[in-house]
Amino acid sequence: MNLEPVLLLGPGPSAMHPRVMQSLALPLRGIFDPDLHQAMHEISDGLRGLFGTTNRYTLCLPASGMSAMEAGIANLVEPGDRVVVCVNGFFSERIAHIAERYGAQVTRIENPWGTQFDLGQVQDACEQGTPPKLLAVVLAETSTGGHNDIAGLSEIARRFGSLLMVDAVTAIGGMPVEVDRHGVDYCYAGSQKCIGSPPGLAPVTLSDRALAAIDRRKSGCPSFYLDFKLVAAYWLDGKPYHQTPSSPLIFALREAVAIVREEGLDARYARHKQVGEELRSGLRDIGLQAFPDSSIALPMLTVVRLPEGVEPKSVIVKLRSEHHIEVGAALGEMATQHIRIGTMGYAASSENVKRVTEALRATLA
Amino acid sequence: MNLEPVLLLGPGPSAMHPRVMQSLALPLRGIFDPDLHQAMHEISDGLRGLFGTTNRYTLCLPASGMSAMEAGIANLVEPGDRVVVCVNGFFSERIAHIAERYGAQVTRIENPWGTQFDLGQVQDACEQGTPPKLLAVVLAETSTGGHNDIAGLSEIARRFGSLLMVDAVTAIGGMPVEVDRHGVDYCYAGSQKCIGSPPGLAPVTLSDRALAAIDRRKSGCPSFYLDFKLVAAYWLDGKPYHQTPSSPLIFALREAVAIVREEGLDARYARHKQVGEELRSGLRDIGLQAFPDSSIALPMLTVVRLPEGVEPKSVIVKLRSEHHIEVGAALGEMATQHIRIGTMGYAASSENVKRVTEALRATLA
Repeated sequence: MNLEPVLLLGPGPSAMHPRVMQSLALPLRGIFDPDLHQAMHEISDGLRGLFGTTNRYTLCLPASGMSAMEAGIANLVEPGDRVVVCVNGFFSERIAHIAERYGAQVTRIENPWGTQFDLGQVQDACEQGTPPKLLAVVLAETSTGGHNDIAGLSEIARRFGSLLMVDAVTAIGGMPVEVDRHGVDYCYAGSQKCIGSPPGLAPVTLSDRALAAIDRRKSGCPSFYLDFKLVAAYWLDGKPYHQTPSSPLIFALREAVAIVREEGLDARYARHKQVGEELRSGLRDIGLQAFPDSSIALPMLTVVRLPEGVEPKSVIVKLRSEHHIEVGAALGEMATQHIRIGTMGYAASSENVKRVTEALRATLA
Repeated sequence: MNLEPVLLLGPGPSAMHPRVMQSLALPLRGIFDPDLHQAMHEISDGLRGLFGTTNRYTLCLPASGMSAMEAGIANLVEPGDRVVVCVNGFFSERIAHIAERYGAQVTRIENPWGTQFDLGQVQDACEQGTPPKLLAVVLAETSTGGHNDIAGLSEIARRFGSLLMVDAVTAIGGMPVEVDRHGVDYCYAGSQKCIGSPPGLAPVTLSDRALAAIDRRKSGCPSFYLDFKLVAAYWLDGKPYHQTPSSPLIFALREAVAIVREEGLDARYARHKQVGEELRSGLRDIGLQAFPDSSIALPMLTVVRLPEGVEPKSVIVKLRSEHHIEVGAALGEMATQHIRIGTMGYAASSENVKRVTEALRATLA
């Protein structure tokens, strides 16, 4: 199979650094191989930096980021428990949906896409009804290009004895994720966005409070594959066998995390911020409007409003076929008029901003 | 990171063909990329041959083989349903365990490891109690090195209105798996054993009866990540978005399946059979006994009894450090006296049998 490179500037996966790509083709390793476990150890170390935590339970689930959203519900919530979700995008709605699948009693704090909730709303929602077992929020909403402010949420959560779950799938590696500072009990992420590794592993971190809540469950965790205790025993302590890990994905993530460390977190966040601003400015220059308001706009994911009458799908197809660039469709109601451009990880560069804005200009001309 | 090659002759993952390894480092592709979907289409085609089925619902779950065991329970069984499991090894016991996690009423038909159940036992177990919703069996038990005969099970299953689930994780690609001929309703497998691709994708196939049973569920499937209908809509029809697929794993599996087709199924099964016999004969030559009885022994996985007083762990460590060969620990009660040698996929060759028996002879000398 021969494949020409496509510049991945969609909502993820993002382009890989050549060293990450080469790591995929390292010799395969088995379940208890010492080289593999050394790599897992180094990944956990690097992830603690990226999550801003000293949690020992910092590891990867053996599946993509979406599995980690589900794992949070499956491990932390029991049927009948109340879950309060701050819903202002596709992915926060998905948390609420999955919580319902697992038999939780779900309260949605709904706000329009591209706006933020405020702490008063959260306090009110927690007060009305049974104290929630879990309060959930998305840090960087890939569907809207907006971020949520998680400061102050843990104080509310603690007031009601609730756990705080934060989705950092798009945020991690591209902006600060401060699990310990913000009192987050469970935070999950993806390997394939601003960390710049391929999809298929889901970094997660759990606080002692989260672990204690798991120990207090009345019923067991229904999922075996996503059972934190089983995954963690294998990942952190090397045994027993739980499932067969994918060594190419682990070696690639080890390399991606090493590259993050070489760049430094602050430099990496600054690069994402600068490139995001360059993109928004470049879009303005060609007459296009970015969403949402720049005060809450994400550095690594920009939603772009296309001119009236231009079909997003035709733009996406033309960028791919004529310019070898992938950008993403928008989600929900935004799908009819918007596209999404990601500047994530290795792909977050001024050069790529020029390439995509130039290609967009030519496509819309 | 520099890694020297290790010859993988454990219970899986198995050594990759160089073409599979190269496919891992192909350019990354996004969620709706046409090249990725073409590869998924080719994988489904190849898997239909490997599963011996014309089922349209033949695809991969986005996680390792163990996830597919869980998916069978999560999708086909509702809390309170009765599940009958033929237990004669580690993995069949795990099916029973997962069914209990999901609230099923589980009946185990227990037989000693390395023996087979007979149809009369199955008929009796199904008769005693509520008609089972699911009857489950492992075709090739990686823990014991023995296979089970699945002929006749579907007639019993149909008599009780039950679905037949078969674990073909180790079997697929190394011996015939005849889903249509044996009336199997749900069959699942792994990418990393006799197919010779890396771990991280789980091939599955569902009959129309299985799909109809899902449609008749009173409660929804609790798992979102492993919901067959959602995975299949994306894999077979290209939309909507469900989770982010790992294109390196998909391109590698596409290549592995292409290599299977080039070799031909019959030739591939014959090669595994011959190499398995060579291994058992080579072990005899150095005074070691293989388990189980050769009449039910698997071609691709051989359990080896070590001489009294020899610790399996020391043998495993020596083979790895001095001979660069990985073999596997045994499971359960066999762990204290046995090791497991896999001759799977690309690694199933006379040359590798010579290498491992020579290394074993030297290690035990």
